[in-house]
Amino acid sequence: MTKTNAGRFFEDYAVGDVITHAVPRTIQMGERALYHALYPARHALHSADTFAQSCGLPFSPLDDLVTFHTVFGKTVPDVSLNAVANLGYAEGRWETPLWPGDTITATSEVIGVKQNSNGKSGVVWVRTTGRNQHGAVLLSYVRWVMVRKRGDGPAPQTVIPDLSGSVAATDLVIPRGLDFTNYDFALAGEPHRMSDYKVGDIIDHVDGVTVEEAEHMLATRLWQNTAKVHFDATNRPDGKRLIYGGHVISLARALSFNGLANAQLIVALNGGAHANPCFAGDTVRAWSEVLNTAETTAPGIGAIRLRLVATKGTAGELRDDDGKYLPDVLLDLDYWALMPL
Amino acid sequence: MTKTNAGRFFEDYAVGDVITHAVPRTIQMGERALYHALYPARHALHSADTFAQSCGLPFSPLDDLVTFHTVFGKTVPDVSLNAVANLGYAEGRWETPLWPGDTITATSEVIGVKQNSNGKSGVVWVRTTGRNQHGAVLLSYVRWVMVRKRGDGPAPQTVIPDLSGSVAATDLVIPRGLDFTNYDFALAGEPHRMSDYKVGDIIDHVDGVTVEEAEHMLATRLWQNTAKVHFDATNRPDGKRLIYGGHVISLARALSFNGLANAQLIVALNGGAHANPCFAGDTVRAWSEVLNTAETTAPGIGAIRLRLVATKGTAGELRDDDGKYLPDVLLDLDYWALMPL
Amino acid sequence: MTKTNAGRFFEDYAVGDVITHAVPRTIQMGERALYHALYPARHALHSADTFAQSCGLPFSPLDDLVTFHTVFGKTVPDVSLNAVANLGYAEGRWETPLWPGDTITATSEVIGVKQNSNGKSGVVWVRTTGRNQHGAVLLSYVRWVMVRKRGDGPAPQTVIPDLSGSVAATDLVIPRGLDFTNYDFALAGEPHRMSDYKVGDIIDHVDGVTVEEAEHMLATRLWQNTAKVHFDATNRPDGKRLIYGGHVISLARALSFNGLANAQLIVALNGGAHANPCFAGDTVRAWSEVLNTAETTAPGIGAIRLRLVATKGTAGELRDDDGKYLPDVLLDLDYWALMPL
Repeated sequence: MTKTNAGRFFEDYAVGDVITHAVPRTIQMGERALYHALYPARHALHSADTFAQSCGLPFSPLDDLVTFHTVFGKTVPDVSLNAVANLGYAEGRWETPLWPGDTITATSEVIGVKQNSNGKSGVVWVRTTGRNQHGAVLLSYVRWVMVRKRGDGPAPQTVIPDLSGSVAATDLVIPRGLDFTNYDFALAGEPHRMSDYKVGDIIDHVDGVTVEEAEHMLATRLWQNTAKVHFDATNRPDGKRLIYGGHVISLARALSFNGLANAQLIVALNGGAHANPCFAGDTVRAWSEVLNTAETTAPGIGAIRLRLVATKGTAGELRDDDGKYLPDVLLDLDYWALMPL
Repeated sequence: MTKTNAGRFFEDYAVGDVITHAVPRTIQMGERALYHALYPARHALHSADTFAQSCGLPFSPLDDLVTFHTVFGKTVPDVSLNAVANLGYAEGRWETPLWPGDTITATSEVIGVKQNSNGKSGVVWVRTTGRNQHGAVLLSYVRWVMVRKRGDGPAPQTVIPDLSGSVAATDLVIPRGLDFTNYDFALAGEPHRMSDYKVGDIIDHVDGVTVEEAEHMLATRLWQNTAKVHFDATNRPDGKRLIYGGHVISLARALSFNGLANAQLIVALNGGAHANPCFAGDTVRAWSEVLNTAETTAPGIGAIRLRLVATKGTAGELRDDDGKYLPDVLLDLDYWALMPL
Repeated sequence: MTKTNAGRFFEDYAVGDVITHAVPRTIQMGERALYHALYPARHALHSADTFAQSCGLPFSPLDDLVTFHTVFGKTVPDVSLNAVANLGYAEGRWETPLWPGDTITATSEVIGVKQNSNGKSGVVWVRTTGRNQHGAVLLSYVRWVMVRKRGDGPAPQTVIPDLSGSVAATDLVIPRGLDFTNYDFALAGEPHRMSDYKVGDIIDHVDGVTVEEAEHMLATRLWQNTAKVHFDATNRPDGKRLIYGGHVISLARALSFNGLANAQLIVALNGGAHANPCFAGDTVRAWSEVLNTAETTAPGIGAIRLRLVATKGTAGELRDDDGKYLPDVLLDLDYWALMPL
């Protein structure tokens, strides 16, 4: 009898199942410093207690993507150990900031299953919820993955969840106390407020970062993400390790400071595709497209919906004539952020 | 007159000498985060304050190997700067958990010397003790190394310490308050309790991690270990740096989560050999063998004695027909851990 | 209209202008741990709260160079984005220690401009001041850089600031409470007090560290220094990234522990030149020359003025017969440190 975790196969997911993911994790100041070492992150609200306090918060919360990565990492042994592909995200909402000292736990509910026609694999949809030590929801999101079947039993009844294409602006949760009335644009790094951005604007974030094996492995381990493709060079003839898609998300988001310095907090993840794999040696660049803007009920705070693209190629270029992602495109992410009106 | 430290030679050790190692070190949340970035560590007691609290501790202690590495690093300038080989460990006991904010100091007593027959070097045994800022013993262990002689003076009287082959289960120190009565196996990551393990069981920990130069140097510097072979590429024609043996210990211990997730705390080091050197580019795997189990007087807590092997090869394979370590074997470590009964 | 920062050109600096640098930064225990992972730093006052307390401080301050790097990083988008060369430093003084939890902001006053005879660029002098969240000055220093001109307008009136060749010993600021009367030389790592050092002494710090791309990028990002030459491999045909000069400063300063373990705090930067660029794969060594010593009014505390040289070559060798830096020399730094009398 083996003692190790072989991961779940398609047959092991039934709609309605709730999976408690193992190994809660306390996040502290150390993770914050590492986030700044791993990514060129400069958004002021995540950089300085004083800036966060001038915006009504008690002190600077961890980067919103620290919550995402930690929760995601918890799910890997139960959701994606035998996954063939990470197919999509939807309905992601950050509901509570992550403060230093908080402990994160995560659960996932199976909300959809659909066997593929080849009978060898199927798609599983889960709604994952990360909570802090008080039970408050930090983040919830839907993810769907293609998972191998163990055997050749009958297909389960197909259940495809009804997912919205984007989180409604009225459903965004604004952190308690957040107030951009006295927002200091000079300290934040750019003068642009929400009204300066128009739907359809394309912003080239200019800078590029070349990724090293050591960096993405440090990051992925930090989130306790154990998927072996990220760490074991013997998995591929060229010895390269597949870079965790979330590493590319954080790189692109950090690069987007240059042009979107005032898009301070991520509050929703509407969707996302890891268009092509990323490997060490790639130089990652980023560009954004403004998809929407909305007011909120919070003082001085607007919401901006952005497409964030990580690419090895040219800003503004996304798909070929057949609608397929260009080979240089690494990430196409759709999210809402908060910005001073 | 040079101001720099040339290290001690064999003649500089006399049985009974006590060496105060320099540079005390305060360990904080940052070291904890770095430990998780450097090693795929997931044992729940070291990951989450809430889990540690459910086991009777005030919050999550630093990984036990942080104590080991920091104490070991302190000894390097005094013990192993002119060492030819690190020969063995014995009688290691962790006596107090390391909490964030603690300051570590270390001393070593010379307990044995034996000149080699070639007259060029000798073996030195030291018992090293690491203490916290309150003077409490965090860890003590015996290490013996082969050290070069400076000159050709007479041999000192041979003193070989009488070392036990393993720490007796009754001598293990259980952290005050630790209680596994309400242990949460789901959050810990595996269902196996001590009674599920039998002496002789071999556990293949499955995963592999390919090591990069940047990673092992970050780790080794973090422990203020200054041995130049770990940092200076000009020491070898191929430019590779010899990886600190303790880096391999931490990698293997972290990998052992998969199959030994409930072996929560290391409480004794019975022995260990760095069987072959490890270099960047090596993919490190791990397997364990159950050597013994024992009850303790603490509530719900058993002790499991494990052989932990780090290897570039196959689980279960250790020595050739002549009893020599196979060339793929990196580490053969013998330790006691605490596990729910 | 672009939303991104194209940086300032020579025409954009006028003497008397004060630039508020963006993105304040809170520094915590995580940055401290990373500093120890990135550099072989062992000075006891920055390593242990207990040692700092035995010297009259409340606990261990961050390394003085953390203050320098963070302040410097803040200035990059406003001062050196279009810089052709970093020409020099002067009149640097640390006035307040950096404690964990402090938030750093920075401003720079333009104190000199001089157009080059080619009309394509010019030299800009700025006095940069870093402050903590209470408004106290942490560090101020003068830096001058060569910056490209945007157009071909007329030259501004030349203003060259009158800079002193070194900070006077009487102008050094000793941290409040610092007292070396009961200094523990054994714990600090070396027995040498200030009177053991003579002007003209050359100290070879012996050890070498080979630098990896991942390491210098982690460091440079940690200081939120965004200069693209440090991160983007497509900037050079060989794919190497130019290493931030400050990374070399920290490496050399950390290596100088071996021979200058009691030069505990940097209190002034008299001058410095990045003599040649440093790239990944270089093995950095360091040597120091004693330039001066002075008493201070603080108990048991002397000041030692040191030349710190980082080199890929031989200790003691600095310039060729024409007075040019040898090609192996990376850094020539002139600073004051505090040392027990």
